[in-house]
Amino acid sequence: MKFQEFTDDCQHRLDKLFNVYLKNSTIPAKKLQDAMTYAVLNGGKRIRPLLVYATGYALNASTENSDPPAIAIELIHAYSLIHDDLPAMDNSDLRRGKPACHKAFDEATAILAGDALQPLAFEILATHPATLEDSQRLAMIRILSDASGYQGMVSGQALDLAGTDAISEMYQLKTGALLIASVKLGAVAANVRDKKTLTALETFAKNIGLAFQMQDDLLDIEDSAITGKPKGLDTANKKITFPSLLGIEKTRAMIEELYSESLTALKTIGEKTLFLKELAEALLQRKK
Amino acid sequence: MKFQEFTDDCQHRLDKLFNVYLKNSTIPAKKLQDAMTYAVLNGGKRIRPLLVYATGYALNASTENSDPPAIAIELIHAYSLIHDDLPAMDNSDLRRGKPACHKAFDEATAILAGDALQPLAFEILATHPATLEDSQRLAMIRILSDASGYQGMVSGQALDLAGTDAISEMYQLKTGALLIASVKLGAVAANVRDKKTLTALETFAKNIGLAFQMQDDLLDIEDSAITGKPKGLDTANKKITFPSLLGIEKTRAMIEELYSESLTALKTIGEKTLFLKELAEALLQRKK
Repeated sequence: MKFQEFTDDCQHRLDKLFNVYLKNSTIPAKKLQDAMTYAVLNGGKRIRPLLVYATGYALNASTENSDPPAIAIELIHAYSLIHDDLPAMDNSDLRRGKPACHKAFDEATAILAGDALQPLAFEILATHPATLEDSQRLAMIRILSDASGYQGMVSGQALDLAGTDAISEMYQLKTGALLIASVKLGAVAANVRDKKTLTALETFAKNIGLAFQMQDDLLDIEDSAITGKPKGLDTANKKITFPSLLGIEKTRAMIEELYSESLTALKTIGEKTLFLKELAEALLQRKK
Repeated sequence: MKFQEFTDDCQHRLDKLFNVYLKNSTIPAKKLQDAMTYAVLNGGKRIRPLLVYATGYALNASTENSDPPAIAIELIHAYSLIHDDLPAMDNSDLRRGKPACHKAFDEATAILAGDALQPLAFEILATHPATLEDSQRLAMIRILSDASGYQGMVSGQALDLAGTDAISEMYQLKTGALLIASVKLGAVAANVRDKKTLTALETFAKNIGLAFQMQDDLLDIEDSAITGKPKGLDTANKKITFPSLLGIEKTRAMIEELYSESLTALKTIGEKTLFLKELAEALLQRKK
């Protein structure tokens, strides 16, 4: 199987899952459902679910067992973007080149859509008809709740809003926590608990996540077409970024270093890490 | 044990749990932690955890096994109040007579505090060291995620904001879903799956919840000291309420009827429903 085939297959599975849990579901409030669906289907790169599937593949999980964590983590990511874009937060009218959820609908509906995506993620982990053991489902719920809560993502966003010089630590919480959770979830789907493998996966995800964030900061300066956000939004918001702190050249060098370390980590995992490697390449735009 | 002793004991247990999970926890973002703690400790009546404990007591659960669902459902309730009070939602500056979370802190922090309370609730159900079986933990996660999500509470809030004549249905989602979940969680803590008991508990919680909501609507007209909200807020927000729809007398009569039916439902459950009964009485202010 080629990488393109792999990502197409993942996307196809996700679309089916979104249909089951969002579109075809009978939600009592139509507008809420529309807002949830709009935000989730708003054309993301699906990095986190791809990491779940690629890790599951590397460790011989059945693809079906990777389905529930793949969709669950994407729903958590989608909710966080809805809330991050709100006027009281990053105040961004655009997301991926389209109106942010609170512009396409309204602020109250956007808050509620985000609120409703969270329990749905946990519900799916608890109820999806994959052949996961109860202990696997609970391990997934622990990983996802820990990464998305006050020890992870939400604290990262709080620190980001407050403004901090410790941006590596902030991004490690804000975006790193969910990326690391993605590979951990893939490992649980495969029922792999071997410490060496888990540490290597974590190093991989951590490095790729930080490199991706650095690149995102560079793109904010260089090209808004790729991020789909208004150009120079970070500068306008007076945000501390990696380039503003380290300079553009140093940031580029660090991306290289993190990328190289992430590939080294993969070597300890085995033979089937090809898709994880290609995913890293795609994320850091080494191929077009 | 007397009812007062029972509620004191529950409150004591909850305070200890809040300490473990909120105050003593090392949350990376201090302000976020303060906002979460402020909102949760802001003097609520703890109706939902009391329902969990009273149901657990009625069905012979160990009190420790009722701890995780009791705190989890209160955290979900607390998050929903933080978000409900936001300017884009009900726009209420006061909550229980004190500044709402977004006034005591700021809007962004209030949104994030609510966001972080959600995964914490699910994390506690998955990790609290009570002697619950994995299947019980997953059953609790299913009940809580279902009740708090797009099939329950969040849809209720969305319908409330949109304005609807079907206010019984709206309240059944907005507040009824969590109250029904409370008694279901207590039953799972006791490992009771007997259908007759579950149906009776559900009828009890549904009726008490609706009666309580009707009384809350009456109080909004009559006395703001008890609700801690500015008097006449519903009228100012042009909300349809039970009294505005049915008239005050009809509303009072319905409260009586629902109360009486809830007591009838309890009779099928057994000998130890005393605290559920007294809880209903306290909620509907039959005793001072």
